[in-house]
Amino acid sequence: PPASLAAPGRGRSRRCLVAVRAEAGVGGINPAIRKEEAKVVDTVLAGELSKPLTAYCRCWRSGTFPLCDGSHVKHNKETGDNVGPLLVKK
Amino acid sequence: PPASLAAPGRGRSRRCLVAVRAEAGVGGINPAIRKEEAKVVDTVLAGELSKPLTAYCRCWRSGTFPLCDGSHVKHNKETGDNVGPLLVKK
Ligand code: FES
Ligand code: FES
Repeated sequence: PPASLAAPGRGRSRRCLVAVRAEAGVGGINPAIRKEEAKVVDTVLAGELSKPLTAYCRCWRSGTFPLCDGSHVKHNKETGDNVGPLLVKK
Repeated sequence: PPASLAAPGRGRSRRCLVAVRAEAGVGGINPAIRKEEAKVVDTVLAGELSKPLTAYCRCWRSGTFPLCDGSHVKHNKETGDNVGPLLVKK
């Protein structure tokens, strides 16, 4: 019998044809932030930082983007990812 | 005719059993950077910035992470995404 990845040796495997297509946008990392902008860029003026330490979001899940609000924790837990913020120190 | 999800009444449909499983890390946004770290956090000391303007990566594709090397352009083009760096001005 012909070899088959799905069921080696089983004759009926050729009857099963399945197409799995990627959705548009698969592979993107920003689901919702400022999608009306072609490219989301933010600027920090180091001389105008108010706090000794400010955390900036790199997970694109923050409700206070471009600041980090801790949402990376949920994202990492749900996906097994390991992302975190950029800390800017005065 | 082949078994089809669109025609559940067809007798042969039970012969076709397909499992589509998500890979580990689906939904994650960092495919490769410092995956040995539980959480990738970087710190910028504003007082020690060498250039007037420094771009920090938020797309997790930079070859010079945590700095931006322009890789977000390719990522955006390939996925339809709209991410870009955080600029820190001295
Ligand atoms: S909320 Fe996005 S890095 Fe913290
Ligand atoms: S290379 Fe990642 S934001 Fe530019």
